[in-house]
Amino acid sequence: MKVQPRTLSGFMELLPGQQILMENIMQTLRETYSLYGFTPLDTPAIEASEVLLAKGGGETEKQIYRFSKGDSDLSLRFDLTVPLAKYVALHYAELAFPFRRYQIGKVYRGERAQRGRFREFYQADIDMIGDGKLDVSNEAEMPAIIYQVFNRLGLRKFQIRVNNRKILNGFYGMLGLSEKAGDIMRTVDKLEKIGAEKVKGLLVELGVPEEKAGEILAFIGIKGSNEQVLEALEGYRGRNELFDLGLDELKTVVKYLGGFGVPQENFAVDLTIARGLDYYTGTVYETFMVEHPEIGSICSGGRYDNLAEYYTDKILPGVGISIGLTRLFYILNEQGMLNEERNTAPADVLLLPMVEDLSPAVELATRFRNAGVRVQLYGEQKKFKAKMNYADKIGVPFVVFLGEDEIRDGVVACKDMKSGEQTKMGFEETLERVREGLAKKNEGYVILG
Amino acid sequence: MKVQPRTLSGFMELLPGQQILMENIMQTLRETYSLYGFTPLDTPAIEASEVLLAKGGGETEKQIYRFSKGDSDLSLRFDLTVPLAKYVALHYAELAFPFRRYQIGKVYRGERAQRGRFREFYQADIDMIGDGKLDVSNEAEMPAIIYQVFNRLGLRKFQIRVNNRKILNGFYGMLGLSEKAGDIMRTVDKLEKIGAEKVKGLLVELGVPEEKAGEILAFIGIKGSNEQVLEALEGYRGRNELFDLGLDELKTVVKYLGGFGVPQENFAVDLTIARGLDYYTGTVYETFMVEHPEIGSICSGGRYDNLAEYYTDKILPGVGISIGLTRLFYILNEQGMLNEERNTAPADVLLLPMVEDLSPAVELATRFRNAGVRVQLYGEQKKFKAKMNYADKIGVPFVVFLGEDEIRDGVVACKDMKSGEQTKMGFEETLERVREGLAKKNEGYVILG
Repeated sequence: MKVQPRTLSGFMELLPGQQILMENIMQTLRETYSLYGFTPLDTPAIEASEVLLAKGGGETEKQIYRFSKGDSDLSLRFDLTVPLAKYVALHYAELAFPFRRYQIGKVYRGERAQRGRFREFYQADIDMIGDGKLDVSNEAEMPAIIYQVFNRLGLRKFQIRVNNRKILNGFYGMLGLSEKAGDIMRTVDKLEKIGAEKVKGLLVELGVPEEKAGEILAFIGIKGSNEQVLEALEGYRGRNELFDLGLDELKTVVKYLGGFGVPQENFAVDLTIARGLDYYTGTVYETFMVEHPEIGSICSGGRYDNLAEYYTDKILPGVGISIGLTRLFYILNEQGMLNEERNTAPADVLLLPMVEDLSPAVELATRFRNAGVRVQLYGEQKKFKAKMNYADKIGVPFVVFLGEDEIRDGVVACKDMKSGEQTKMGFEETLERVREGLAKKNEGYVILG
Repeated sequence: MKVQPRTLSGFMELLPGQQILMENIMQTLRETYSLYGFTPLDTPAIEASEVLLAKGGGETEKQIYRFSKGDSDLSLRFDLTVPLAKYVALHYAELAFPFRRYQIGKVYRGERAQRGRFREFYQADIDMIGDGKLDVSNEAEMPAIIYQVFNRLGLRKFQIRVNNRKILNGFYGMLGLSEKAGDIMRTVDKLEKIGAEKVKGLLVELGVPEEKAGEILAFIGIKGSNEQVLEALEGYRGRNELFDLGLDELKTVVKYLGGFGVPQENFAVDLTIARGLDYYTGTVYETFMVEHPEIGSICSGGRYDNLAEYYTDKILPGVGISIGLTRLFYILNEQGMLNEERNTAPADVLLLPMVEDLSPAVELATRFRNAGVRVQLYGEQKKFKAKMNYADKIGVPFVVFLGEDEIRDGVVACKDMKSGEQTKMGFEETLERVREGLAKKNEGYVILG
């Protein structure tokens, strides 16, 4: 009796070639985050339910994977932010603030399975956390880092949209609608989907006077260049302290953003960005692929005032941003935006020893490996044709043959599997040819455009 | 009401400096495995219980984290081998054989918590899987790769011990004790702990005639150089077919091992190595730290005849080896063998802008980053002393000051935090100095001796 092998729906499992592209992306994230002074963290996937659900409530609790083991009530983490809060509260005395960390890890949400939705998925998060205070300049550096990340991955047509929660909350305060602000923002969020008229209707249903509903739509409708939007916002100044503070912050962030090297076309002030989560209190970000707005934000985050309030009295303000890596990878693949031309073979060189004694082959493989070339030594007793079929199937760029002649003459026979061209040269020349070929193959970014 | 932040016992959570050393180790593993033509895989941490427990039985089932979600019966993986078997059976048609993969991932075992035992831990596995056949030379390459891995990590005093299950099974066959072979091997495994006399007593209790118990102890007691052990084994040839086959395999592996570049002092034929798991059928490996045999094997594995028999009729022989990374890291730390002298700061350079406009600082940081130097831009409004305290606390090797003078003169003021020496030079010279300092700091391996 065999058990049918299967992978659970909602769980991504890639074939080797695609996995290498995923690894390329992760490596780029690790390197880029490191270049900005973020230190890698790794926290358990399982936490005590009491700790993970300290905040409690809502969708989270329904989706969580929660179970008992012995007399422990355990849960799988559903994001990397709550574990970070726990980590910082727990290790507070041993950390230096501002504390910058990145974490790339799997999180779990038992959502209803549907295309492109995952129950296990990687998040790639960066956060900067201050002790008591955190300068607003950090809120401008955040999008600059995200810009660099996407830039290094090859993504070109994206826009980081920036708003400030103080402006929104301040605006609703002006209208005397502070208590309804959450509901209003959730309604306004539907603008692109259902249109202005329907949103207005829903707002009125919420108990917003029609005139104020109109004001809200006019406010949310403010469009134009960053300067134009900021200028329009100036028209509201002086009516609400929180609003004014938010506008100052937003202007500072926009001013610094240029300094941080983010090109104008890659960011925009957008008053419709609110972010669902309650804990954002200042700058908020969403990132859209310009040609695929239907996908929604591929990288979001914002400023929060108190990361770990459920665990500690310390005030720990921060700013963080998260890439839903598994979903992004899925989308890029769907859109044909993964660069399949890159070298995704398990090795750069397949080495076929043609004599029984493996020592010369091992020696040759070692020389290649010491030069950073990935070599698979093929030890199977197969016909030549079967060996070449294998080389084709794994898509290896080069095959090296090592027979008596080559050993005697101290040369390397090397076949470029794409051009079919075969050379017999010394090791150094062969290495150079291999390196050139590999560099050419990998000169394109992982993401196309 | 605050919730007490805590991390579950049996779950490793490192502070930033140690995490960087762990990342260094993982990166070395990824690079080294890749150099030998292994492709990275990633499989879900959650599988259907039916799939994960297809083999069923034993300790595994007791330790497993198993739970329901909706009407699904789910389990967390307890190793990377069963998911590999599932993967290969499921994706058989899309893979090329021999299939070489590495996987570094977390696995879960709800063991009783005790010092140095983990319930969530990383395994770093490599496997080579053939379709129907797999050449014995692969069994010699395996320890060569492990040798390379430890060598690149800096571990020096270790020994890979090699045996062959066919020799053991064949030997017990000679004695007419095939049916008791499993029990006998488990008993013999206690030799170092309880001594020869007690083992003999236990064997007799198992129903082994006293004379044969003596023969078993004599056999297991064969010691000496690899040549001496192989020579002694030759004395048993001709009495059991399986034994003879195993001896041939072992001789081939030992012969090739030298060819694969493993120094004599790093491997030994050891007839006491059996490996607990039932599915090993040929060469088996364990790896010991020479000065810490009490720790047990830090890297184990072997040859199996049929990886995925619970899922498919295809015969998929393979050879695999696994490093228990979390436990190894814990041990290295306990033994003071982690190189804390390496640069474990979150950044290489802490850049302190001394003027309000951040643009020149961003520009300078970008130049450093483009050269691969990790730079944290410090944006907090703090007193100079507080900034330098922060630099000390994160252990950053260099601090760069950028004030009006430096901007005007086009120079970089850079302080070496260890020597205290401060220079004011052009960018290129500063970069060179920083690079030299970093190279010096990281010239030692991650593992000390």
